[in-house]
Amino acid sequence: MRAAVLHGPRDLRVEDRADPRILKPTDAIIRVAAACVCGSDLWPYRGIQPIDAPMPMGHEYCGVIEEVGSDVVALRPGQFVVGSFFASDNVCPVCAFGYQSSCQNAEFVGGAQAPFLRVPLAQGTLVPVAGMPSPEMLPGLLATSDVLGTGWFAAIAAQVKPGGTVVVVGDGAVGLLGVLSARQLGAGRIVAMSRHADRQALAREFGATDIVTERGDDGVARIRELTNGLGADSVLECVGTQESMMQAIRSARQGGHVGYVGVPHGVTLDGEKLFFEHVHLHGGPAPVRRYLPHLIDLVCSGRIDPGRVFDLSLPLEQAAEGYRAMDERRAIKALLRP
Amino acid sequence: MRAAVLHGPRDLRVEDRADPRILKPTDAIIRVAAACVCGSDLWPYRGIQPIDAPMPMGHEYCGVIEEVGSDVVALRPGQFVVGSFFASDNVCPVCAFGYQSSCQNAEFVGGAQAPFLRVPLAQGTLVPVAGMPSPEMLPGLLATSDVLGTGWFAAIAAQVKPGGTVVVVGDGAVGLLGVLSARQLGAGRIVAMSRHADRQALAREFGATDIVTERGDDGVARIRELTNGLGADSVLECVGTQESMMQAIRSARQGGHVGYVGVPHGVTLDGEKLFFEHVHLHGGPAPVRRYLPHLIDLVCSGRIDPGRVFDLSLPLEQAAEGYRAMDERRAIKALLRP
Repeated sequence: MRAAVLHGPRDLRVEDRADPRILKPTDAIIRVAAACVCGSDLWPYRGIQPIDAPMPMGHEYCGVIEEVGSDVVALRPGQFVVGSFFASDNVCPVCAFGYQSSCQNAEFVGGAQAPFLRVPLAQGTLVPVAGMPSPEMLPGLLATSDVLGTGWFAAIAAQVKPGGTVVVVGDGAVGLLGVLSARQLGAGRIVAMSRHADRQALAREFGATDIVTERGDDGVARIRELTNGLGADSVLECVGTQESMMQAIRSARQGGHVGYVGVPHGVTLDGEKLFFEHVHLHGGPAPVRRYLPHLIDLVCSGRIDPGRVFDLSLPLEQAAEGYRAMDERRAIKALLRP
Repeated sequence: MRAAVLHGPRDLRVEDRADPRILKPTDAIIRVAAACVCGSDLWPYRGIQPIDAPMPMGHEYCGVIEEVGSDVVALRPGQFVVGSFFASDNVCPVCAFGYQSSCQNAEFVGGAQAPFLRVPLAQGTLVPVAGMPSPEMLPGLLATSDVLGTGWFAAIAAQVKPGGTVVVVGDGAVGLLGVLSARQLGAGRIVAMSRHADRQALAREFGATDIVTERGDDGVARIRELTNGLGADSVLECVGTQESMMQAIRSARQGGHVGYVGVPHGVTLDGEKLFFEHVHLHGGPAPVRRYLPHLIDLVCSGRIDPGRVFDLSLPLEQAAEGYRAMDERRAIKALLRP
């Protein structure tokens, strides 16, 4: 099969790779209906996160089950399924607590930018969709696999409440879907921090009530202005840099909640400063599996359209252009059709 | 009057100081019935937190109102009251959120190790006790002023739930009262981390079900052993060092809650490590005022006896010995009688 493989900084190639096959009785092979490029794929693409060997890319996927291992009894070939970036057994105590991305048997699912994908722990990981979705529904379902699930977790971790005031730091696909999630959870006011007109527009479509273009001290000052000097009840951190993390913490009110889902790169927190900020902090790799059934329902019933974040759709063979467009911020998120 | 004043590292003197007087119409003067030495007083006492000028010490107090400013209408001279280390108006939006220690008009209350004390924002800060407490009740009421209120906040911040598993890092007075608080909140299992036999005994009296003497990696390993490899639902961090903070974070399960109340000294958190620990973090200067009415009730009704943490009681003139005894860990906490 043809698959996207990263060979080094900005060296993404689509090349021949062996078809995946069942390695364990708990595996499934799926025929990928749609995959995409993640903001986190840009860390190794840009060389910020070095790689040791050529790396098959992609961890967001949905598609049709092709084959299942002998232990997989609750799924069958032909079903359309969505999974997320960590395979999880969904039965261990950590999964039972709702932290499937830290499952005691978690395995990272890589290589989804390809026509076929092996998914470990298939029965715990994959969630079936009723019937066969229409092509128009594919982007939305694909979004639940990671970006929506991650934005949703950010909103949950930030304890977004009906009527509450929310700030979203980061206008990538996760941040934008954090806006959508906050709206779904009933937020009264949603401030999107963004400097890009196209992303601001999408943020407004998803439910943002205010846009703040300033950053750092000025950004914090603007948030204070908008919140009677107090800061927001809930802040979603969807970037992962020192600047964005501090922006998020300082934008929350005393007793407010910061949900952080941007994978931290070079972030350190000063304990004493954090202490006196009086905020709640929660985050980590999103346990997307916890939310998948609900998010799939929201998409299938047409109540949300998270697929709007895909503003570029390419055949898999042109994956390199998808990476380039996102790296240069010409695209919010690129969908790849195997 | 005679008051405890810190002049430099380990140089605590009881000396003459002018009696405090009403400076603002919102002030009250109280005649201090009992004060005490705080673990946090040891930071400047040990020279770890340098001081610029001689510093009147003490921020834990209870006593009888002597005089009130003209704006103080809900309190009257002769009432027995308890207050905490931050004066708060108790009406601003931050107080309304329950974070009185970050009140928009907060003022630190210092100089309580003395016969008289000026309390700013008296009406928001001081909570009256019904009637005049017996001498036996004084230590318990004094404890509510800070150590119990702080241990209680640690337990609340760590979301201690009925039946939950709790770890308490730190066997100072705050940690020990964190144990008591966790018990009151219904914890099923309470692990106190302590190496000192006398403190272990008091921890057990307060409700600890297990004692762990190991620290660092060994301490984390012991906690995992005791919790089926998972870590605790709730962890109370009651020290404020890098080691204790990491001990706390690593002792919590995925999705668990760390409540940290030890004022951080030289603590930095690695964002990426924190991310993958998947814990909730909340803490800061305890909003004791939020809990004072309830804690006073618990003490006055005899349901708890937090005054047990005072294992040394001295006349104020001997305050220096109280500091020495705590510095050398000969005493858990020293009560001072003006």
